Amino acid sequence: MSNLKIGFLGLGIMGQAMAANLVKGGFKVTVWNRTPERCAPLVALGAKQGKNPKAVIAHCDITIAMLADPAAALEVVMGEDGVLEGLEPGKGYIDMSTVDPDTCEYIAELFEEAGGRFLEAPVSGSKKPAQDGTLVILAAGDRTLFADAAPLFEVLGSKSLFLGQAGQGARMKLAANLVMGGMMAALSEGLAFAQATGLETAGLLDVLDSGAMSNPMFRLKGPLLTAGNFAPNFPLKHMQKDLRLALELAEEHDQPMPTTAAVNESFKRAKAMGLGDDDFSAVIETVRGKQR
Amino acid sequence: MSNLKIGFLGLGIMGQAMAANLVKGGFKVTVWNRTPERCAPLVALGAKQGKNPKAVIAHCDITIAMLADPAAALEVVMGEDGVLEGLEPGKGYIDMSTVDPDTCEYIAELFEEAGGRFLEAPVSGSKKPAQDGTLVILAAGDRTLFADAAPLFEVLGSKSLFLGQAGQGARMKLAANLVMGGMMAALSEGLAFAQATGLETAGLLDVLDSGAMSNPMFRLKGPLLTAGNFAPNFPLKHMQKDLRLALELAEEHDQPMPTTAAVNESFKRAKAMGLGDDDFSAVIETVRGKQR
Amino acid sequence: MSNLKIGFLGLGIMGQAMAANLVKGGFKVTVWNRTPERCAPLVALGAKQGKNPKAVIAHCDITIAMLADPAAALEVVMGEDGVLEGLEPGKGYIDMSTVDPDTCEYIAELFEEAGGRFLEAPVSGSKKPAQDGTLVILAAGDRTLFADAAPLFEVLGSKSLFLGQAGQGARMKLAANLVMGGMMAALSEGLAFAQATGLETAGLLDVLDSGAMSNPMFRLKGPLLTAGNFAPNFPLKHMQKDLRLALELAEEHDQPMPTTAAVNESFKRAKAMGLGDDDFSAVIETVRGKQR
Amino acid sequence: MSNLKIGFLGLGIMGQAMAANLVKGGFKVTVWNRTPERCAPLVALGAKQGKNPKAVIAHCDITIAMLADPAAALEVVMGEDGVLEGLEPGKGYIDMSTVDPDTCEYIAELFEEAGGRFLEAPVSGSKKPAQDGTLVILAAGDRTLFADAAPLFEVLGSKSLFLGQAGQGARMKLAANLVMGGMMAALSEGLAFAQATGLETAGLLDVLDSGAMSNPMFRLKGPLLTAGNFAPNFPLKHMQKDLRLALELAEEHDQPMPTTAAVNESFKRAKAMGLGDDDFSAVIETVRGKQR
Repeated sequence: MSNLKIGFLGLGIMGQAMAANLVKGGFKVTVWNRTPERCAPLVALGAKQGKNPKAVIAHCDITIAMLADPAAALEVVMGEDGVLEGLEPGKGYIDMSTVDPDTCEYIAELFEEAGGRFLEAPVSGSKKPAQDGTLVILAAGDRTLFADAAPLFEVLGSKSLFLGQAGQGARMKLAANLVMGGMMAALSEGLAFAQATGLETAGLLDVLDSGAMSNPMFRLKGPLLTAGNFAPNFPLKHMQKDLRLALELAEEHDQPMPTTAAVNESFKRAKAMGLGDDDFSAVIETVRGKQR
Repeated sequence: MSNLKIGFLGLGIMGQAMAANLVKGGFKVTVWNRTPERCAPLVALGAKQGKNPKAVIAHCDITIAMLADPAAALEVVMGEDGVLEGLEPGKGYIDMSTVDPDTCEYIAELFEEAGGRFLEAPVSGSKKPAQDGTLVILAAGDRTLFADAAPLFEVLGSKSLFLGQAGQGARMKLAANLVMGGMMAALSEGLAFAQATGLETAGLLDVLDSGAMSNPMFRLKGPLLTAGNFAPNFPLKHMQKDLRLALELAEEHDQPMPTTAAVNESFKRAKAMGLGDDDFSAVIETVRGKQR
Repeated sequence: MSNLKIGFLGLGIMGQAMAANLVKGGFKVTVWNRTPERCAPLVALGAKQGKNPKAVIAHCDITIAMLADPAAALEVVMGEDGVLEGLEPGKGYIDMSTVDPDTCEYIAELFEEAGGRFLEAPVSGSKKPAQDGTLVILAAGDRTLFADAAPLFEVLGSKSLFLGQAGQGARMKLAANLVMGGMMAALSEGLAFAQATGLETAGLLDVLDSGAMSNPMFRLKGPLLTAGNFAPNFPLKHMQKDLRLALELAEEHDQPMPTTAAVNESFKRAKAMGLGDDDFSAVIETVRGKQR
Repeated sequence: MSNLKIGFLGLGIMGQAMAANLVKGGFKVTVWNRTPERCAPLVALGAKQGKNPKAVIAHCDITIAMLADPAAALEVVMGEDGVLEGLEPGKGYIDMSTVDPDTCEYIAELFEEAGGRFLEAPVSGSKKPAQDGTLVILAAGDRTLFADAAPLFEVLGSKSLFLGQAGQGARMKLAANLVMGGMMAALSEGLAFAQATGLETAGLLDVLDSGAMSNPMFRLKGPLLTAGNFAPNFPLKHMQKDLRLALELAEEHDQPMPTTAAVNESFKRAKAMGLGDDDFSAVIETVRGKQR
């Protein structure tokens, strides 16, 4: 399967790690990044460097994109020397960026019109799982492309799920993130409650980690929360944006979300306090008792 | 250490399992239960049967109570032929029932006046961890008694914490349960969101279990929630009561708890829907889209 | 001033009453409605009937529109034989429909490009104030047109406010409606609380009407709420839509809105219960104790 | 009817004004206050001064109390030289203080045992209505005493309601205050929204006062809110306490109160910000955008 020619567009923190794993995994990889200097480490590993997205997709069987935001994801597809210009029938394009459902469906339509195969594949997990090849891949769109990409996903992630029509990957990510936001808000209020009532926060973290609620996130973030260390892994403003998107989507389906609505207000308040670029665990600052 | 004479008051589901572990652990155990028939299995294992709480505490070095609710916990201490009547200086009494902080502090005062040593030691974990001896024990009160009880706690639990003055154990349990209630409400809304937007709930559970949020509670309860199976492990009305107690205690300290307040309203709504005796995971019924 | 030739587009419940007031006020009015039969009562009063929006605006100095929703408001402006086709420099166009801020700003841009004067002027008040000429008019956009329209607004409303750039009228309406939604949710919970605690709801309405909270809305809606009479004056789904738009706009400004978020969830729940076409006071159904 | 001998216990801001109205209304009034100097203005108007509550009730047909809080209300009844010591069958005692339902029911039981007639009669309205004799009186308890007190209530208030068993007056006050708290939270968020979106807050107040929501409270408090003037008429901490009592009572009846729970959290946050002694309208400080 390593005869597949693979393109990789976007070499940020995530993309660097993922593309490197593909090269190390034995695939023939052609990389491109808007600022070309970021290609050097990959070229050093054995990748080729492409001139632009159009050239990459024209040269490769399957091209992966890992871009910063929906605007960048759209620009790479639709812009000058973009993916659509190099597209031919049968080519596969996998967008692993985090994109809202509407943008995702729009890109899927563009590929349908143009005759290419499209798969969205946002991931759960950040820098460390990207390096370790243990991402969880939430794929949706063209099922044949999902099948063809199986060897790639084996290198990039510990698990990949096929979720149906394009857009369902983005929706699944919102579902997971609304649960994550709720867990973090609950942890924050538990820690603030402990502090207010004279309990040791370390004791609460110990209790939480000893029973049915034990989870890696509390284990990792709990001590950082207590210490007020909010160096960003997942910026608070991104969590708040996902909560907003989830609430909007729920509204379209008349789905009540009373807890999530309250959680979103806490994240909004944190953003208004200037914590948008901190880690999303900084939401605890909205309920710290005496420091306010 | 197995020369210690141990009393055990209250042989419900939890008490049966815990007393049995003590007997099997080599301790000399004298048991008592309001309905005496429940003593038989323990006697069969080698325990003695006590006539009443007064007689048990008079005979034993350390007596443990595991009773249904604060009213039962008070009655066993203060009632006729109760613990206080058999108390002598130096005797140890450990209440492992789930009791609110106020009741707990009141019982502690009674022992202080009477000259006995008192430890509250509510547990995190239900039937299975009680049987397996893997409870988490949240102890507070007399530190010398905590030290003396160490060999007992090693048999009963996987971890025991000493939290300070009597009342802090009950408060720690409220802190843990408010986080648990928040996690369950978040999971419920995530599953309802998935259902409303055409995602498979099993897929969401898979995603949640594959990353940083992975925890035994979601793993156990998730499929039951989806199936609408709410056979009670932890009755919803008890969770709602703990949320109420936590909110009241937070109010005394001017501690904002916006997410917990919303979570409590969801559990209240579930109770009003007649789900109080179901498992606390039945809170999902308040947000199921089309079934309402 | 009655030499002004006035156009009136849209003869629904509101438009009928408003156009009639203009005719009775001595203005020369040319009316148009998508279903032309609705013009007859106005023609009987002395109005002329126009062929289409293009013809109306070409003939008149100032044209007023009172349409069902943003889509209709856009269609009348941009569609075939629409307003833009008949527009000439200096002509005035006043959109009194309820339109979201974005649509409103878009229409304003179209007029700016086309050289006409545009004023948005959504109203506070429904059928009765429209008939009585006691609407409150929330105008924004071209200030010269606001000045020229003063005699019209005197006939149509009891008060008119100029609020600045086009879009501010729509925003002001959202501000007023979020307060109204909050008042209705508070009244609903007050009445449900009264019912649950054995108080007479009529007594509570009496108390509320006797002091500083006394207001026409509680006086009018209170007895209907108690009686479960939800014949729509202001449909619940429209209130929920306005709450959603207000929350979205607040999010853009990082403005926390914790109460409004909870209120919105109650209206969403009501909508999910099938009450979207009932009066917005039907939100009380989400908190009625025993009926659930 | 002015042959009735009336006692009046408690001459704070409210009591001063109310007792003065009774004297001016032609009643024979005997007053008492813990700090006796406060009796002077009433004596100057023609009232007698009593030695203690016991002496006042022994001398009078009907005695009214207007005390600072539940503790003071209990002390005057049960303390040394208190009301119960001077009570004889048939005597009437009307407690117009603001007291929680539980305390109220407890006082009612004391009178039932002692053979006196008891009426609770908390009021809606503060200093100005007390002076003007336009209070709203929420009476409950002994119906014959309510009938006998009619001439007094005509002097003290613009309206009096009989609500049933003792405790219902206190409950009705909670119902009214939860609506009031909700209205104030909604107004606060409306004003904050206006500010955040570039609207003039004075314009919003104008709009609110021009339609169905128009009410004296918004008219009075609106400009003060905008100006940040929170001189206390009704201290924020008292409103928060009433919200808490209302939520607790609702819980006993499994009554969902999602909006009130969110409103209470905003008042709690305000209290945590140190605004407890300011007017309850200071809740707006919790949502002011840029000042945070």
